[in-house]
Amino acid sequence: MDDVLPGYGLARAWLQKSGSGDGDVVGHVWAGVPGRGKKEESIMLALGTVGRRVWSARVSRSFSHLNTVTEQDLAYFSKVLPPSNILSTLPPTCTPHDDMTPYNVDWMGKYHGKANTVLRPRTTHEVSEIVKYCASRRIGIVPQGGNTGLVGGSISLHKEVVLNLGAMSNVRSFDPVSGILVADAGCILQSLSDHIAPDNHIMPLDLGAKGSCQIGGNISTNAGGLRLLRYGSLHGSVLGLEVVLPDGTILDQLSTLRKDNTGYDLKQLFIGAEGTLGIVTGVSILTPPAPQATNNVFLALPHFDNVLPLYQTVKRQLGEIMSAFEYIDRTAYDMALSHGLGPVLDAKEVGDARCFVLIETSGSNEDHDMEKLNVLLESLMTADEPLILTGTLSQSPGQFESLWAVREGLPECVQKEGKPYKYDVSVPLADFQKVVDSVLGRMISMGLHGDHAVSKVVGFGHIGDGNLHLNVIAKRGYSPEIEAALEPFIYELVASRRGSVSAEHGIGSMKTHALHYSKDSVSIEWMRKIKQVFDPLNIMNPGKVLP
Amino acid sequence: MDDVLPGYGLARAWLQKSGSGDGDVVGHVWAGVPGRGKKEESIMLALGTVGRRVWSARVSRSFSHLNTVTEQDLAYFSKVLPPSNILSTLPPTCTPHDDMTPYNVDWMGKYHGKANTVLRPRTTHEVSEIVKYCASRRIGIVPQGGNTGLVGGSISLHKEVVLNLGAMSNVRSFDPVSGILVADAGCILQSLSDHIAPDNHIMPLDLGAKGSCQIGGNISTNAGGLRLLRYGSLHGSVLGLEVVLPDGTILDQLSTLRKDNTGYDLKQLFIGAEGTLGIVTGVSILTPPAPQATNNVFLALPHFDNVLPLYQTVKRQLGEIMSAFEYIDRTAYDMALSHGLGPVLDAKEVGDARCFVLIETSGSNEDHDMEKLNVLLESLMTADEPLILTGTLSQSPGQFESLWAVREGLPECVQKEGKPYKYDVSVPLADFQKVVDSVLGRMISMGLHGDHAVSKVVGFGHIGDGNLHLNVIAKRGYSPEIEAALEPFIYELVASRRGSVSAEHGIGSMKTHALHYSKDSVSIEWMRKIKQVFDPLNIMNPGKVLP
Repeated sequence: MDDVLPGYGLARAWLQKSGSGDGDVVGHVWAGVPGRGKKEESIMLALGTVGRRVWSARVSRSFSHLNTVTEQDLAYFSKVLPPSNILSTLPPTCTPHDDMTPYNVDWMGKYHGKANTVLRPRTTHEVSEIVKYCASRRIGIVPQGGNTGLVGGSISLHKEVVLNLGAMSNVRSFDPVSGILVADAGCILQSLSDHIAPDNHIMPLDLGAKGSCQIGGNISTNAGGLRLLRYGSLHGSVLGLEVVLPDGTILDQLSTLRKDNTGYDLKQLFIGAEGTLGIVTGVSILTPPAPQATNNVFLALPHFDNVLPLYQTVKRQLGEIMSAFEYIDRTAYDMALSHGLGPVLDAKEVGDARCFVLIETSGSNEDHDMEKLNVLLESLMTADEPLILTGTLSQSPGQFESLWAVREGLPECVQKEGKPYKYDVSVPLADFQKVVDSVLGRMISMGLHGDHAVSKVVGFGHIGDGNLHLNVIAKRGYSPEIEAALEPFIYELVASRRGSVSAEHGIGSMKTHALHYSKDSVSIEWMRKIKQVFDPLNIMNPGKVLP
Repeated sequence: MDDVLPGYGLARAWLQKSGSGDGDVVGHVWAGVPGRGKKEESIMLALGTVGRRVWSARVSRSFSHLNTVTEQDLAYFSKVLPPSNILSTLPPTCTPHDDMTPYNVDWMGKYHGKANTVLRPRTTHEVSEIVKYCASRRIGIVPQGGNTGLVGGSISLHKEVVLNLGAMSNVRSFDPVSGILVADAGCILQSLSDHIAPDNHIMPLDLGAKGSCQIGGNISTNAGGLRLLRYGSLHGSVLGLEVVLPDGTILDQLSTLRKDNTGYDLKQLFIGAEGTLGIVTGVSILTPPAPQATNNVFLALPHFDNVLPLYQTVKRQLGEIMSAFEYIDRTAYDMALSHGLGPVLDAKEVGDARCFVLIETSGSNEDHDMEKLNVLLESLMTADEPLILTGTLSQSPGQFESLWAVREGLPECVQKEGKPYKYDVSVPLADFQKVVDSVLGRMISMGLHGDHAVSKVVGFGHIGDGNLHLNVIAKRGYSPEIEAALEPFIYELVASRRGSVSAEHGIGSMKTHALHYSKDSVSIEWMRKIKQVFDPLNIMNPGKVLP
């Protein structure tokens, strides 16, 4: 597919099963199209209808400016890296296909990459040498950490070389006094947690993927995770970065200072840039002291209107020890129960509660924290106009886990119920349930609500972070009608509330077409300018983030 | 001075009293020099010796590319703004000199600006119109907030127009549930605190200048202040910005979301850019709930080696309620006592303590916090190898204030002792006292220690933030010998520990020559590229930040 008619750009249309909220790519078509920057519609026209189903197509930009790795290139890489750190389908290496798979397929199996070569440098200097060479040869590069992303950001979709950071996994330093950790980008999040645990510190972020994801990838995707409410975003806790820029220059901003007002804070640009502006090779991060005690409560509320006053009350009463404030709507709670989770509350006392809240505390004194929670619960129960119907405070580690299990089990329940359209959005707190209700209302009004189509519209998420997980469950499977009813409706709904169409998963290659719902044209234009100044050859993770 | 020989650039040498750590500018000389970018030495040569004293000179870059405001320009501005929002020495406005002073002179009286016109727009649209016009006319612009900076960043040094944000002072919204505040950039920090206080929230930053400084200026200078240890930096708490770029474009990233991973986080660039990349006009910021209780303790330590183990112990025991951990060395403590502050500890128990620590807590429950502090103090006192000699826990608001008074009174004591050379640096925690001792050692070895020269070298600051205030007190006044002994010695000392030569004050026009001690050439080159892409005409706060 590397031959294109003169004057034609090479375009690739990704075929996506209609209604696959998670973006399952089921195939793709290459096409020579006149010029560059053709609109999606014209490509669709060129492709015609694929079978009888409606497909959505996302058209990649032309990649004819990039070269793929050749045997000569491989010979150069062999001078920089030992054989064990090079995988390639090219001779003389001839890595078996199966050995390439972990680098070419994301962990969900959604995205199937095309890289013929994977490089695993051991030092920043090696990264720099490789990037310099690739820049001189116009070879595209996909920086890759643990490959646990959800939006196809770390997959080589156009035969770019994969530069995997996994062989850079040394902790460079840890200061148990300040809590400042300096580490190679390829360190696995869990390993870093283990490294600092004996000194009573924890990482400021925690994710389900912690056993595989790498800190460099966390930073490149601005990972949110479970501790954001308490410890804030990586823009605050990352103190310094070492980055190899797209021309191979090493940008050393690996500061270990909490305060440094000497010029532009360039490192911030790489946090969340998904590897499109450079390759993060080293990280300096502030780690908080480990809490000595954690507790939780589970509350039932008569209606959504009480959630926000409750959030205010709890913030004031628990203050510095509140570490999670999770929202679960009634549909989600009932679904959890029907799948064998809970009940954690007495059914009669729950009555017709419309929603539920799980609150976690993390503090330095178990007795104090329990007392604060008891006082909170009592004041909530005995108020003249109680905000809650009932609630329970965990009394043991086992109960602590079982309260969390209801909330944490929801994604699995959703999968069991049918085919879910999943949306990970940020909206103002007051709009949480409105968004869920609007979608349900639309399904009903369009005759799509019921076991024949959408059986459930489920909302849960992090009130504290304004992050709503909206799940629309198609009982009998995905359908063009449901998808057409949902999109762009939901994106427009989120945009109308100045929300984010990707709260924490990023853009990757999956959501470039939806970027404009959360960023206006001026912002996107300036993102392009920044990309252009750092990566004028467009070799660094091309086709990701920017539409 | 606008006429320069053809082929010559216009250069201005600022004359600074030798040894004035705070950079008192006592005069300046204009000179036509061949070409541009001439080195400091050649300008000095051209200037010759000024009187019998040694002066330091900082040479400005050529500003011949910029035009000054004319009567025709003023006529245009009058179409955008009402007369009350324009000050100008030009006819027909003819503002008296004294009325211009608050905008042309910084609050310390160090920097004397040359602006003939000050504009006070009321809306973002007006800012945009003014900037567009200035760009078309190549008129330099100095964005100005409360003009409370310490490094000459908000003063028009080259006849740029001053664009003061003071007339944009509306709170746009406050959500008492999420704590998210959206405000015009010209809102005074104290006014914002007052606005959200009834809803039990506080601003995430607090400064001595809070009665005058504006939130837009705080953000443009990445102000640190007293709450950084607890609530982190503005890079974490600022959720969104509205910025007028140097071509007049309005960049609207005024998000109110805690999580939004849709592309590059461009707003971060403007935090700490000191108005050189654009004008912050609107701010969205996360405000924390107000603490319900504050307490403090004052401890004496036998030597510096105990400070860091103590910091670790306290972090673990007090955890989430610790809000300040301040360091005071023995010289500073004795100086405070000799000026009538304290004593807060029994002199006999203090003995020959080498240093002191003040710890503050802010929490949601007075009883719990006091109990934690009591337990901490008891465990410190009764340990087998105690880290402290003695300590006191404040028992009343009055005592709380008097403990703080010792720490907060230090800058004033320093002024009373003589002429201070003041350095605001960040260094690794372990190096705090080493830096102070190195400077003292150098003074002694050079025969400069004693009442005839440097009477005291005093160290205090924020251990928690790694921010050391180093004060070298010249009893009989500044002298060339002392200055030569101190600089670049201290900057090199800080640089050798990868520290920052400006922890929180910024670079402004005062420290551009010292930027390279904290940023390497690659970083400075990339700062220039960023400046170039945003402000190719170099009209936005020219001559600030970048050397």
